[in-house]
Amino acid sequence: MQLLWLCLLPCLYLASQCSAEQGLEFPSFDGKDRVLHINERNYKKALKRFDMLCLLYHEPQPAHKGKQKQLQMTELVLEVRGKRGLEEEGSLYVFKDDRVIEFDGELSADTLVEFLLDVLEDPVELISNPMELRAFERMEEDIRLIGYFKGEDSYYKAFQEASERFQPYIKFFATFDKATAKHLSLKMNEVNFYEPFMEEPAILPGRQLSEMDIVDFVHQHRRATLRKLRAEDMFETWEDDMDGIHIVAFAEEEDPDGYEFLEILKDVARDNTNNPELSIVWIDPDDFPLLTTYWEKTFKVNLFKPQIGVVNVTDADSVWLDMSNDEDLPTAEELEDWIEDVLSGKVNTEDDDDFRDDYDYDRDEEDSHQPDDRRDYNRDEEDSD
Amino acid sequence: MQLLWLCLLPCLYLASQCSAEQGLEFPSFDGKDRVLHINERNYKKALKRFDMLCLLYHEPQPAHKGKQKQLQMTELVLEVRGKRGLEEEGSLYVFKDDRVIEFDGELSADTLVEFLLDVLEDPVELISNPMELRAFERMEEDIRLIGYFKGEDSYYKAFQEASERFQPYIKFFATFDKATAKHLSLKMNEVNFYEPFMEEPAILPGRQLSEMDIVDFVHQHRRATLRKLRAEDMFETWEDDMDGIHIVAFAEEEDPDGYEFLEILKDVARDNTNNPELSIVWIDPDDFPLLTTYWEKTFKVNLFKPQIGVVNVTDADSVWLDMSNDEDLPTAEELEDWIEDVLSGKVNTEDDDDFRDDYDYDRDEEDSHQPDDRRDYNRDEEDSD
Repeated sequence: MQLLWLCLLPCLYLASQCSAEQGLEFPSFDGKDRVLHINERNYKKALKRFDMLCLLYHEPQPAHKGKQKQLQMTELVLEVRGKRGLEEEGSLYVFKDDRVIEFDGELSADTLVEFLLDVLEDPVELISNPMELRAFERMEEDIRLIGYFKGEDSYYKAFQEASERFQPYIKFFATFDKATAKHLSLKMNEVNFYEPFMEEPAILPGRQLSEMDIVDFVHQHRRATLRKLRAEDMFETWEDDMDGIHIVAFAEEEDPDGYEFLEILKDVARDNTNNPELSIVWIDPDDFPLLTTYWEKTFKVNLFKPQIGVVNVTDADSVWLDMSNDEDLPTAEELEDWIEDVLSGKVNTEDDDDFRDDYDYDRDEEDSHQPDDRRDYNRDEEDSD
Repeated sequence: MQLLWLCLLPCLYLASQCSAEQGLEFPSFDGKDRVLHINERNYKKALKRFDMLCLLYHEPQPAHKGKQKQLQMTELVLEVRGKRGLEEEGSLYVFKDDRVIEFDGELSADTLVEFLLDVLEDPVELISNPMELRAFERMEEDIRLIGYFKGEDSYYKAFQEASERFQPYIKFFATFDKATAKHLSLKMNEVNFYEPFMEEPAILPGRQLSEMDIVDFVHQHRRATLRKLRAEDMFETWEDDMDGIHIVAFAEEEDPDGYEFLEILKDVARDNTNNPELSIVWIDPDDFPLLTTYWEKTFKVNLFKPQIGVVNVTDADSVWLDMSNDEDLPTAEELEDWIEDVLSGKVNTEDDDDFRDDYDYDRDEEDSHQPDDRRDYNRDEEDSD
């Protein structure tokens, strides 16, 4: 086993390409090795030296290190892991001050860098005027907490300490402004918790909240009735399944049809927000262009239209609500009936397997807008002979 | 010179990685070469065979082809270019039916695949109920056209033909529904043009519009007073400068401060929509994490806060409006005064150069949240000795 430090920050800036017009140069690799390989002698120093560090914890590289060296590394990893709470091999960890933040998102440069930039921001954002309040109210996709405090006193500090434990996944806001607090019906030292897509917040019990009061409440209420899949924590969300399944809804928010379906979905989520058995994962295919074709193949659905279904996360087997009539999206009531059938087990991914093999597969293949790649590739080879 | 066909579609789906939970496998390369190398014998056939093709037009690979072969390729490129309107080397073109669409966006897999999926969609989207209308009205960032037609008659067909020329950069919508048309104050066979961020549309003159009437109008009104930089056509936007400069505004829409600044900016744009001299490029740093650090270094600004400035596209020299007081964003009037000074040449990127060398640079360095990478890298090397 081996440790590798990716000192991505403060060295994100690499040499840039030349072009006729200046101002949009994407970074390209300049040949300098900015990755620090960690050993027993330098790991403590490295932790001290940088404000923020990004660590890739991976399997040993083959035929690269002697056996004794490997043993030493294993011990070191175990030591660091014990101290820092690292658990999964193949994971990325960010060290900031005393905190270890696991990155469980899409491993692309874009997503990782955005994540690191978010970690660099202040964990609590202040709201001090009506326009900022409007910005706060528009963020319906995210879990948000907002507290009203006199100023930077001990209650605010407890709130801030709690916020650091969830940065950048859960957003924390505070206000010292009476009018803003009044608009949000917040009393002094009170904290509100907004579940995604819900209109009314939950009020945290008690009004002189400790850091742990807040942390515990967030842990208890973290799994939302409707949650959007985000590149920055997509694997964490996917691993948080409900007894091996996910109810998955595909809808493009930018598409009129997708928008309409999403509004119906939000209504259903609002009606069922107190059902702990229910959590729907909403995926906007626009956010995951590289997965769109894979999903269409795996789930045998056409993602140019909204879809809702049940996915078994063990084998990716799935069943989907029939919405083949374009003009006729289901009503909130019809959707609730279907969800009830899913939760009771009446609709499940196993019952239809025989049926699917005989019939469903072929129909869905035609419905999909992506031709079979293997077939086309072979055709292509034949023709170019 | 050499032609290379990237038959990305219909073969986007590559073999996927294994993981414990199924459903989120990103494609990884399976070793199959799906890129078709084009020569005189196969280019016509290839154009016929695929519904859509993606072409990378690049410089010859070094020491790879004999001189005569190169000459043949040059001729072929010139022939294809003449027929198809290809102009720039190093560019990506998509062939769909009779059309050639240049891709002038960020060369990342995400952006390119999203672009190709967009090109596969219908170029005209139908709006047929109040919820879809609401989705249409929310798309304020994009140029949108909407027409009211009796059905799929010749006027609708002309509108559709026009839409294909701008797909996927400009969005075209149509309605056959009387209530929707009434809500939009659209008369039969009338087409409205919505500039980004404007509340009122422009009405295209005439009511039995030909394809060319629509195409000409879009060409004339395409450069918006406030336009958002998008990954899919970022280079095209950047090349469309105003006499060698851009007025650039950085604002994170998800950030309360950024949102507030953006609302002020929209007010300014609405007040000045008839000024053909004015076009502000709004950049949301969240959309370009890989460029954020580069911009902070090049422009010497802190992008954790909103910024507005003038950028010279020839040398990336820039001046920025002083908004160092956090609590005090400029009002719409103050912003308009500053923009007037930019347009009159009173504020420009040249006058401050001496001053900047002596003073501004150092101050901004401190202000920036990103430490100098070179300095840190050296320190890092010393310490690890």
